[in-house]
Amino acid sequence: MTNLSKYFQLNILLLFMALIVFSCKEQSIPKIIKSDSSQHPKLILTKKGVEEIRANLGTVPIFDKTLKAVKEEIDAEIALGIDTPIPKDYSGGYTHVRHKRNMVVLQKAGVLYQILDDEKYAKYVKDMLMQYEAMYKTLPLHPKTRSYARGKLFWQCLNDSNWLVYVSQAYDCIYDYLSEEERNQLETNLFRPFADHISINSPQFYQRVHNHSTWGNAAVGMIGLVMDDQELIDRALYGIKDLKLDAKEKDDDGGFLNKDGKAGFLANIEEPFSPDGYYNEGPYYQRYAMYPFLIFAEGLHNVKPELKIFEYKDSVLLKSINALLNLSDADGEFFPLNDGQKGMSYYTSALVTAVDISYHFGTQAPGLLSIATEQGSVLLDDSGLAVALGIKNKKAVPFEKKSINLSDGSKGKQGGVAILRNEDIELVFKYASQGSSHGHYDKLSYSLYEDGDEVLQDYGLSRFVNIEQKGGGNYLKENKTWAKQTIAHNTVTQNETSHFNGKYEIGSQHHSVLNYFSSDNEVVQVASAIERNAYSGTELLRTMAVIKDENLEKPYVLDIMKVISDKVNKYDFPYYFFGQVIQTNFEYKTPKTLSALGDKNGYQHLFVEGRANAVSGNSKLTWLNNRNFYTLTSITNGNDELFFTRIGANDPEFNLRRDPALMLRRDNSQNTLFVSTIESHGSYSPVTESAVNSKSSIVELKVVLDTDMYTAIEITLANNKKTLFITANLLSSQKHSVKINGKDYLWTGNYYFK
Amino acid sequence: MTNLSKYFQLNILLLFMALIVFSCKEQSIPKIIKSDSSQHPKLILTKKGVEEIRANLGTVPIFDKTLKAVKEEIDAEIALGIDTPIPKDYSGGYTHVRHKRNMVVLQKAGVLYQILDDEKYAKYVKDMLMQYEAMYKTLPLHPKTRSYARGKLFWQCLNDSNWLVYVSQAYDCIYDYLSEEERNQLETNLFRPFADHISINSPQFYQRVHNHSTWGNAAVGMIGLVMDDQELIDRALYGIKDLKLDAKEKDDDGGFLNKDGKAGFLANIEEPFSPDGYYNEGPYYQRYAMYPFLIFAEGLHNVKPELKIFEYKDSVLLKSINALLNLSDADGEFFPLNDGQKGMSYYTSALVTAVDISYHFGTQAPGLLSIATEQGSVLLDDSGLAVALGIKNKKAVPFEKKSINLSDGSKGKQGGVAILRNEDIELVFKYASQGSSHGHYDKLSYSLYEDGDEVLQDYGLSRFVNIEQKGGGNYLKENKTWAKQTIAHNTVTQNETSHFNGKYEIGSQHHSVLNYFSSDNEVVQVASAIERNAYSGTELLRTMAVIKDENLEKPYVLDIMKVISDKVNKYDFPYYFFGQVIQTNFEYKTPKTLSALGDKNGYQHLFVEGRANAVSGNSKLTWLNNRNFYTLTSITNGNDELFFTRIGANDPEFNLRRDPALMLRRDNSQNTLFVSTIESHGSYSPVTESAVNSKSSIVELKVVLDTDMYTAIEITLANNKKTLFITANLLSSQKHSVKINGKDYLWTGNYYFK
Repeated sequence: MTNLSKYFQLNILLLFMALIVFSCKEQSIPKIIKSDSSQHPKLILTKKGVEEIRANLGTVPIFDKTLKAVKEEIDAEIALGIDTPIPKDYSGGYTHVRHKRNMVVLQKAGVLYQILDDEKYAKYVKDMLMQYEAMYKTLPLHPKTRSYARGKLFWQCLNDSNWLVYVSQAYDCIYDYLSEEERNQLETNLFRPFADHISINSPQFYQRVHNHSTWGNAAVGMIGLVMDDQELIDRALYGIKDLKLDAKEKDDDGGFLNKDGKAGFLANIEEPFSPDGYYNEGPYYQRYAMYPFLIFAEGLHNVKPELKIFEYKDSVLLKSINALLNLSDADGEFFPLNDGQKGMSYYTSALVTAVDISYHFGTQAPGLLSIATEQGSVLLDDSGLAVALGIKNKKAVPFEKKSINLSDGSKGKQGGVAILRNEDIELVFKYASQGSSHGHYDKLSYSLYEDGDEVLQDYGLSRFVNIEQKGGGNYLKENKTWAKQTIAHNTVTQNETSHFNGKYEIGSQHHSVLNYFSSDNEVVQVASAIERNAYSGTELLRTMAVIKDENLEKPYVLDIMKVISDKVNKYDFPYYFFGQVIQTNFEYKTPKTLSALGDKNGYQHLFVEGRANAVSGNSKLTWLNNRNFYTLTSITNGNDELFFTRIGANDPEFNLRRDPALMLRRDNSQNTLFVSTIESHGSYSPVTESAVNSKSSIVELKVVLDTDMYTAIEITLANNKKTLFITANLLSSQKHSVKINGKDYLWTGNYYFK
Repeated sequence: MTNLSKYFQLNILLLFMALIVFSCKEQSIPKIIKSDSSQHPKLILTKKGVEEIRANLGTVPIFDKTLKAVKEEIDAEIALGIDTPIPKDYSGGYTHVRHKRNMVVLQKAGVLYQILDDEKYAKYVKDMLMQYEAMYKTLPLHPKTRSYARGKLFWQCLNDSNWLVYVSQAYDCIYDYLSEEERNQLETNLFRPFADHISINSPQFYQRVHNHSTWGNAAVGMIGLVMDDQELIDRALYGIKDLKLDAKEKDDDGGFLNKDGKAGFLANIEEPFSPDGYYNEGPYYQRYAMYPFLIFAEGLHNVKPELKIFEYKDSVLLKSINALLNLSDADGEFFPLNDGQKGMSYYTSALVTAVDISYHFGTQAPGLLSIATEQGSVLLDDSGLAVALGIKNKKAVPFEKKSINLSDGSKGKQGGVAILRNEDIELVFKYASQGSSHGHYDKLSYSLYEDGDEVLQDYGLSRFVNIEQKGGGNYLKENKTWAKQTIAHNTVTQNETSHFNGKYEIGSQHHSVLNYFSSDNEVVQVASAIERNAYSGTELLRTMAVIKDENLEKPYVLDIMKVISDKVNKYDFPYYFFGQVIQTNFEYKTPKTLSALGDKNGYQHLFVEGRANAVSGNSKLTWLNNRNFYTLTSITNGNDELFFTRIGANDPEFNLRRDPALMLRRDNSQNTLFVSTIESHGSYSPVTESAVNSKSSIVELKVVLDTDMYTAIEITLANNKKTLFITANLLSSQKHSVKINGKDYLWTGNYYFK
């Protein structure tokens, strides 16, 4: 109901906005006037920007609405009084939550002071900063010892850095309100030592290419920009001068501390982003990292325009925002690749920042305005004003998400992520590099969505972020024993062992390789990629297509996984569906007692709920979820086994979700082919109690050719119509000719479909 | 997204409707003019009603919208052509679905003919009826044999009766369009033998007090009204003349065929409805039964006004609609008491009928108009027009659901159902009679909702209605082995045996008894009831309160179950929560392999996922579901055991949902007291990643007095505030005085709370 209500309010708002706009003449966006960087504010708000904002107050609905909400929020905080408790707790505990809240409150109060010109906000910021100053000058390391880099206000330097990124903005806003003496006091006892602690005193945190370091760099750089301290600015941009770390040391998450010696903000832009803007840890961490990237970039743009930070590396910061928005489902929720918490979406405040900055400092793409409208708020700065004016002036158009291929690697040469989209079906195919310390061992895995709902899931992470009762809100041990393991993903596991043996050192040296990506044809979207290193001596080639056949109600997925190995192996191939088993064409037995499928590599977490011999031909499973029917059809042989599994074995603290899967096992096989289709079909309504189109329309899948060069699958539909999909397994020429059952097929391109 | 889209459309619609209404003058509803019952149509549509409808066309938005939708639907059906296949399938199969669809299409086409005066609809109805006539006259019994009363078009007489209820309306609409010869042909070869088959030839179906029979009665009566056949009308109202059935025979569901010899429509009104309008099988079946009750009543009102059918039994038909609407959660979904499929709601077409008829033939309660607005459609008859005009004339006000106590039993003397409501919390407490053959063995059970979402669930039925692949869409064997059993419910099971030993013959002789119900005090709503027969020699007294304490964020539940027995027993007390375990204050062990908790009475379906010794004092469980936190606090002793269970053992066809519970077991106890609170608190957002108020505010529950007369519970809150709840266990005077720990408490009423 809550979501519906929000949606309702938003709709009404949109409608009223539309009505208002109808009655107003279009106004042009005022040109942004360049600020003088010797004046404050200059970092995010600018002197001239503030003047424009004040001039527009009361006439730009979404800006005014955001301002009103922030004012109410901060007035309530001011009424509660200031609390800067002695640090004590992990994430979720009181002191952690309070200091985290304080940093946001300070930043917002600073902005209110500038926009509303009301000294009560400046005084509040000053008073709280002085309390921090009094505490910080004698503050020891945080008492909790779990982090590889302990902070002072928080248990980890990461949170301290978050704090400084926000608080430097607040300081900038009240800079002129303070006396020189007060500024000296704050800079000497609080800001400078604070910046030193998270950098010079914590090089294992600061001197890296890692999202943690990006926060550190931004924190040091932003306070440096406000204080006009070139040493801090340089330290932010280029890392700690003349410092080299041991390249083999690792952090808490198992990531290398500093493999190749690179450090600083520019290196942090250079390394993790591909030329397409894909961030190597995946969208969940990109979302987290975007705020320091963009807010520091905005500050650099304002104070050091000569750096042309938004044009750096072919404008990769702006491209990354587009990539990130494309890495979300129909509801705006990010695909939980690698360590990603489900439910995080472009409604998060970091994405308000991203969208507004992308619009203002980019090409004013009107699709961004529709997302800003959905977000319902804007930044209270120049970029937010630009967005608010764009919306007011009816420039918004829908943000269209299409099939897209995003390369991974700083040069775009380390695999990537392909998203295939057709109507409501979205398939996310991962053939990327390891994804830094947050990567999972899931080469060539995929997940499937329909209209924003998961059909075949990626488990995501095993963590309850900021829920203190669950391991302090930090990563749970099941993240390593389950979530990162290959068997937790919709890809192939060989001999019950994860890719790269689950070893980060090995995984981080490799990446999959694109075979081809094709999205030109509206009815057939295909991505195909090869993995040669996950298992020594085994090559995996997976080709995934989303096909719209007019004989079927909705687009369906065709999945061809070709395995070539130098020895005989056992292959496990799970499908993590959700919901209720409706029908199978194979006979399964359910055991009286449930035991784990294995004892390591994630298998120890899977209970076996059912077991069957596969059908010689096609094995089929139909299930019901979210009031839709789904059918998996898979080519199997009589020696294959099928397992119904459920996550939850060896989970002594109920950290895992009890989610089901069907797993196909093919033992004693060397070279082999896994071929399947997944259809979404029909619907069930508990209100009308009618089941519509509840049966699969695919009668048979058949391999009609499988060579090194080509794999051809014949798909027979319920109306007896046959279609043929041929994929080219080797990237050679674009012209192909092949004889199948006496008939010649000639085509140009990577695949044939008719 | 689909729901959101619908909601969005609805909102826009509402807004535009509001705008339209603003610009129109209020119009009075035209007086309904009495029809002459010798003319057709006369049954549901009336000659004069049709004139009024035609006069208002194009000016009443929701009516026009419904008409437009129906016209589009039927025009599409006409374009597809007529198909009346030879009957062959169970529910969900083609012939079943087609005939079911045909009956609706016929009814709607008939209405369109009357309203639009377009002969194409009359011809379509006539052509299809003639095809049915040609087939029916030689049609044998339906080939599927599973039903206790086989139909001809369908596998059970129930569906044949559905068909005739709809088709008699269609026949009425085109009566005058047909020649006398055509009418004779239809009546002789189709309608009369059809009515005879479901009545005289199927007395085990027809001659009962049961929802099946209600459909049969309505079918026979409605075609009788159209044909002006007094014999059929009398058979409908009073049952088959001079027929008595064996009182001990049972139907497929285990219900008695005809325990006391009553039959006919009036008996079917008399028996199952309590004076408050509660239907003894529960809301899911009431919803199903309402359509024939109301549509036949409407027909009787129109053709035989002298019967005053809507005033029958103190207007119980109209009262029952109010009861049914109150038996729905915040989303309009009916509480799944007894055999109820979750998700069924007042958006079902039967409730459009109910709401419109209730409005038109009742007191024009303006709250009904808001539900009709949500439903988004109206009946295309006089009552629908009245509702549409009411909405148009801005008479709608919200339908307010408050705490309500609904008595059960034809005289209101067989227990009941109490619903306690406070803010977003709804508690449904069942102390009713057996509920006919669809009843569950769950005396004094309850379920808990927050804003339309289940907090502690009632499992509902085990059936996938109309999903052919799941047992033909019929009741699954797990409905008896699991869903009906006591352990499947939030109540106490003694010695691993269901109430009444799970025997319908015994259960149907008994009912629980109200101790008291109190909803006058806005901050404390209480229901208390006694069960003396579920277990021989054991008396259960359960008192449930929903309490709004200003120190807590939301209202909480206080649950006191007092057990008095003549011997030592084992008591099991489950809590069917949903979601993720966040924290416990007891240490539990999770087994390596999962086994069933028992081997019968539902226990064979529960896997044990964890086991603990309870805390001496209070045992606590906090969980997270739907982004809310919940905490159960239960008074336990060191000998109590706690089990984490999950449904799904011995479920060879995956018919059951894998839902969890915490179960409290108290062995070797005679008289005992189960006391617990359930708090909903705080929230978690995956977008802001903040956990708000994630901990329980109740520090301690303590029994400070427990006598035959009174039970007193002291509740200590986190701020050390103590409150005291004293409940009167015996209904005696309203004046009470009791000494606890040396202090005297005096009060008037059933409970004390301070």
